[in-house]
Amino acid sequence: MTDTTHIPAGEAVSGQQRRIEEDLTYRVLASFENTPDARLKQLMQALTRHLHAFIREVRLTEEEWNTAIGFLTAAGHLTDEKRQEFILLSDVLGASMMTVAVNNQAVGDATEATVFGPFFAEDSPEIPLGGDIAHGAAGQPCWVEGTVTDTSGKPVPGARIEVWEADEDGFYDAQYADGRTAGRAHLYTDADGNYCFWGLTPTPYPIPHDGPVGKMLEAVNRSPVRASHLHFMVTAPGLRTLVTHIFVEGDPQLEIGDSVFGVKDSLIKAFVEQAPGTQTPDGRDLGNQTWARTRFDIVLAPAGT
Amino acid sequence: MTDTTHIPAGEAVSGQQRRIEEDLTYRVLASFENTPDARLKQLMQALTRHLHAFIREVRLTEEEWNTAIGFLTAAGHLTDEKRQEFILLSDVLGASMMTVAVNNQAVGDATEATVFGPFFAEDSPEIPLGGDIAHGAAGQPCWVEGTVTDTSGKPVPGARIEVWEADEDGFYDAQYADGRTAGRAHLYTDADGNYCFWGLTPTPYPIPHDGPVGKMLEAVNRSPVRASHLHFMVTAPGLRTLVTHIFVEGDPQLEIGDSVFGVKDSLIKAFVEQAPGTQTPDGRDLGNQTWARTRFDIVLAPAGT
Ligand SMILES: [Cu+2]
Ligand SMILES: [Fe+3]
Ligand SMILES: [Fe+3]
Repeated sequence: MTDTTHIPAGEAVSGQQRRIEEDLTYRVLASFENTPDARLKQLMQALTRHLHAFIREVRLTEEEWNTAIGFLTAAGHLTDEKRQEFILLSDVLGASMMTVAVNNQAVGDATEATVFGPFFAEDSPEIPLGGDIAHGAAGQPCWVEGTVTDTSGKPVPGARIEVWEADEDGFYDAQYADGRTAGRAHLYTDADGNYCFWGLTPTPYPIPHDGPVGKMLEAVNRSPVRASHLHFMVTAPGLRTLVTHIFVEGDPQLEIGDSVFGVKDSLIKAFVEQAPGTQTPDGRDLGNQTWARTRFDIVLAPAGT
Repeated sequence: MTDTTHIPAGEAVSGQQRRIEEDLTYRVLASFENTPDARLKQLMQALTRHLHAFIREVRLTEEEWNTAIGFLTAAGHLTDEKRQEFILLSDVLGASMMTVAVNNQAVGDATEATVFGPFFAEDSPEIPLGGDIAHGAAGQPCWVEGTVTDTSGKPVPGARIEVWEADEDGFYDAQYADGRTAGRAHLYTDADGNYCFWGLTPTPYPIPHDGPVGKMLEAVNRSPVRASHLHFMVTAPGLRTLVTHIFVEGDPQLEIGDSVFGVKDSLIKAFVEQAPGTQTPDGRDLGNQTWARTRFDIVLAPAGT
């Protein structure tokens, strides 16, 4: 049987007390021994070990246990079709990002993955190369370009790129009252693996923080705000699907901390602001607006890694 | 900073991957550094370490993460004033019992504590010594007697003893449709620390198992049934409040396993069945019924231990 302890040494409990606690953990582990599915057994036993170790390590009080039950209950009651407080909880504890990390192992210089987030929708409109994903969403126009290659450097033609982002007020189209589609699209790389499109320069937005997760963040003095980002999902046959974001170099929220720990240094990109009237890559006339441009070269890992 | 790992050795991830995962854990731990309340900071950081260690150890898949979110969501939706699926979850994982264990440290031969359970009610009727707690609840009459002493062996007069139990069909009065009070009472020890009362010989009952927790128990091949028990809560000035049960020697569920891990060997008592017509301790006439008797001597730890 696996070690049940991983408790910090030097804990002030008697040998008798320690034996009582260890015996309890062993009994709970044993109760899962007859699980028909080997993977489920592994999961339940590991969960038991870490949960018990947590309670023993912090010497959880009964009042704190009650608070935890009350927290989960409130989270459950707030959760419905449109609001998922348990996902938010997983996000702000870094559990979502850790799950992403273990399922997207580092492979050479493959582009790093990050959290999927709750705002992806299946039915995004297709745009041609150089098209605009905004569809009326407000914000500073931003030219995004790059290549998709595999880890050997070979270009990937016809890779499907889904992109989605919030408008300048921090809202995704799913949050609009009128149900219109905006700030999302998909496109395909050309024969040389190149892509480009018009999006919006990303801006920061808070995760929903009017529930128990928001109260917890307040109690621990943490910001609910996500660093500004633009979502990507890239799929191509024979290659591992990449779900990621790019972040905006210089965004003050990068210093404060992204509320869901999605940032990786390799995903922070320069978004270079262009003065009004600067020639656009595709000749688009933006009048007297400023605009920005960025580059994101994407490397896909082999499928099954 | 505390060690974040406690991951089983020999895990098949690259050094690069390991660094990515460790860095994530450090960033989440760091995010709690500005928590004003030192205890809350300790709790959140320990929770983060064990949660992250769990995900890393089992290499949690995204599908399994989704299942976990769905489980918590279903538990939240089932939970209301009368049904508490999160407490059941804590119970069947042994987390409730571990919380009891760390809050009721072993002190000499003080009687061991066990789980409180969901069926205690504040307003139990008082009975005299030798009185009957059944108030119409069906079951085999059972004479329960014992003493209450402190850990030095000194009798405790006037200790308040709350007792409550299910009827022979496995239901507490809180589960009756008509709201009547039955199977519960409180009484006080006499000048010599003695107590006695008529109760019912305890019978097994399942925890509510028509929800996600019940489904989990089924998937891991575990019984939802609690070993037969009679609940006690004993309070006296200057002494630690004791919440416990006594269990029935020979109950087959003791072998199968109590669904919430409440059993301790020291709490298993002989319930000795008496033939119809056997003289009762207080001369009560039970006609041609069988009855049982048991003894439970209670030792209270000092307050604040
Ligand atoms: Cu752990
Ligand atoms: Fe987002
Ligand atoms: Fe009970």
